[in-house]
Amino acid sequence: MKFWTLDEPDIDRIALGAGILGTGGGGNPYLGSLVAKALLREGRRICLVRPSDLAADAQVLALSGIGAPTVGVERMAEGDEGLRVVRAMEDYTGRRIDALIADEVGGSNAMTPMIAAAKLDIPVVDADGMGRAFPEVQMTTFFVHGHVSHPAVLADFEGNVMVVTAATSPQMLERLLRAGTVAMGCTAYFGTAPMSGAFVARYAVPHSLSQAWSLGQTVLAARAGKADPVAAIVAASGGALLLRGKVSDVQRSVTGGFVRGRLTVDGLDEDAGRTLRIDIQNENLVARDAGGVLVMVPDLICIVDAETGRPIGTEEQRYGLRVAVVALPAHALLRSEAALGSVGPRAFGYDFDYAPVGFSSEALPAPGYGA
Amino acid sequence: MKFWTLDEPDIDRIALGAGILGTGGGGNPYLGSLVAKALLREGRRICLVRPSDLAADAQVLALSGIGAPTVGVERMAEGDEGLRVVRAMEDYTGRRIDALIADEVGGSNAMTPMIAAAKLDIPVVDADGMGRAFPEVQMTTFFVHGHVSHPAVLADFEGNVMVVTAATSPQMLERLLRAGTVAMGCTAYFGTAPMSGAFVARYAVPHSLSQAWSLGQTVLAARAGKADPVAAIVAASGGALLLRGKVSDVQRSVTGGFVRGRLTVDGLDEDAGRTLRIDIQNENLVARDAGGVLVMVPDLICIVDAETGRPIGTEEQRYGLRVAVVALPAHALLRSEAALGSVGPRAFGYDFDYAPVGFSSEALPAPGYGA
Repeated sequence: MKFWTLDEPDIDRIALGAGILGTGGGGNPYLGSLVAKALLREGRRICLVRPSDLAADAQVLALSGIGAPTVGVERMAEGDEGLRVVRAMEDYTGRRIDALIADEVGGSNAMTPMIAAAKLDIPVVDADGMGRAFPEVQMTTFFVHGHVSHPAVLADFEGNVMVVTAATSPQMLERLLRAGTVAMGCTAYFGTAPMSGAFVARYAVPHSLSQAWSLGQTVLAARAGKADPVAAIVAASGGALLLRGKVSDVQRSVTGGFVRGRLTVDGLDEDAGRTLRIDIQNENLVARDAGGVLVMVPDLICIVDAETGRPIGTEEQRYGLRVAVVALPAHALLRSEAALGSVGPRAFGYDFDYAPVGFSSEALPAPGYGA
Repeated sequence: MKFWTLDEPDIDRIALGAGILGTGGGGNPYLGSLVAKALLREGRRICLVRPSDLAADAQVLALSGIGAPTVGVERMAEGDEGLRVVRAMEDYTGRRIDALIADEVGGSNAMTPMIAAAKLDIPVVDADGMGRAFPEVQMTTFFVHGHVSHPAVLADFEGNVMVVTAATSPQMLERLLRAGTVAMGCTAYFGTAPMSGAFVARYAVPHSLSQAWSLGQTVLAARAGKADPVAAIVAASGGALLLRGKVSDVQRSVTGGFVRGRLTVDGLDEDAGRTLRIDIQNENLVARDAGGVLVMVPDLICIVDAETGRPIGTEEQRYGLRVAVVALPAHALLRSEAALGSVGPRAFGYDFDYAPVGFSSEALPAPGYGA
């Protein structure tokens, strides 16, 4: 089996790219990247493995943080919550976990499995269940493709642990985990039922950590070469630049546990006179201009600093920021009819069907693996 | 070991007495009593065992319903939730449950263990953790005396089950179970960590189902003999009649998952001119007249129909009801310094210490056991 052993610059690249793929949500990967790099300096290893290289019967656990990102920042993880989830799942099932995988590559949860895997000395699968960030547990390609909704483990930094031993649906699992998270103080870690390597190879969004790495590398290279990071992101991702402009209005409120709102971006320079409106429910969901909907979930609407390419989270948005809005194509696994029921516009309350924006959905080249 | 095998009239007496011991909360035992009697008619047995007769190493599970009583009435239990809790606990611990016990004898949870025990053909301990009803999980004599806060099981009627495998405190367990209950639609069943027979014999409020039976028997006998049920309750319980009168005001609101409010009762006949004010937080907590506090938690403030002795739940209170307010002494286990920290006035936000109202706290005679 080939592993890609990450170094500190790799972590920085993945964190930067994961921020872009967070589409405004998913939490900031920065804190997690500091923890991951500190583990490398302690002599721990973080190894990625391609999903196609997993043993068919490998036990793969999807591990994520859950809760309000703002609380996650204020009340920093003590670092062992993920480990606690893995150990509790091993205790409950009586089987060893062989590898970890991210539910969402977008945002801080790109880092979550790496930190636990470094402590456990097991690999992380270069793949995830969303290819981006989404607000709810059941919105992964795993559950879209019939993954069982139990057992699942939830743990917090104080040592509280609960195991959902039976959930009638992934939606019910989401409700139970969310409720437990609130009881735990709005920040916790969870792991869903272990998946087989064969299942992961078939249904995870492949090479999404590599994609994050490529995006990060692209932005850093453009900055270093005094090139335009935004143009570099578009070129490297098969994406489309929707608009460069200035944030002119931010409506944002917390309702039902989610950040909901709308962002208005007025075009500048060659985009002067155009205005983009972006609906937010934790993540950026739908972008419209005067002509109607331009991009919609599950395709990615990424907002970055117009000068540096730095991703800007929903909670950071404010009047006057100079931003670029870039659309990236969702992976084909998210565009199937089955997936759109969970992650298409109607799943978020819109009364229209998904229409692709016409991107290519070819996987990016996967760097870093040995020959 | 001596068992007391209940018949249908026994169930009716216990349900009536449990309603009185509910001190306004705990839910109505009536529906549960119908289920219990239906099980007896199917040929099932409901057997009580004295706590002192338990084997020292018997595994005893405290089983309760949790959630909003009003939802419990609208969305009737399908009957197997309690069974599901017991089975999940046995699966998790790998040990058989030998007997069930109620967390609270007051209200509907007096019936909960009986129904599951009838299906499992195991006995119910003639004891409970409160000797009355209280609003929160950790307010039992079990937790007051150091019972461990995990594992605990929560299950609903649709088949969802979660196991709290680690909780840092009984208060945290309460939060996790409460949150899970809300996620399950506000009505569920839970079981806390199995207790040893020796622990139960020492720390459960003994013979409280017998006490409920005696109260019920007393009221029924008084009704049959055209005597005064209220006077009979007072005589049989070592209690005190605080006032007979008319409900003149009911303030009631649901905040933070609890019914909170205040009830005003104006005295009639020999109590004319006196007014009683009773604070409510699910249960009746504190009774005052013009001279100050008359009775306070953990002692019992029971409100019954002035004519029939029927207990009146908080949710039934309305202007004009003719009621009698009776105070019953809490068991000595609830009056210890350790217990008062969990169930005394300060635990409910009052700024005064517990003062006993001077009742005798001798156990009532326990009827029904064979010689």
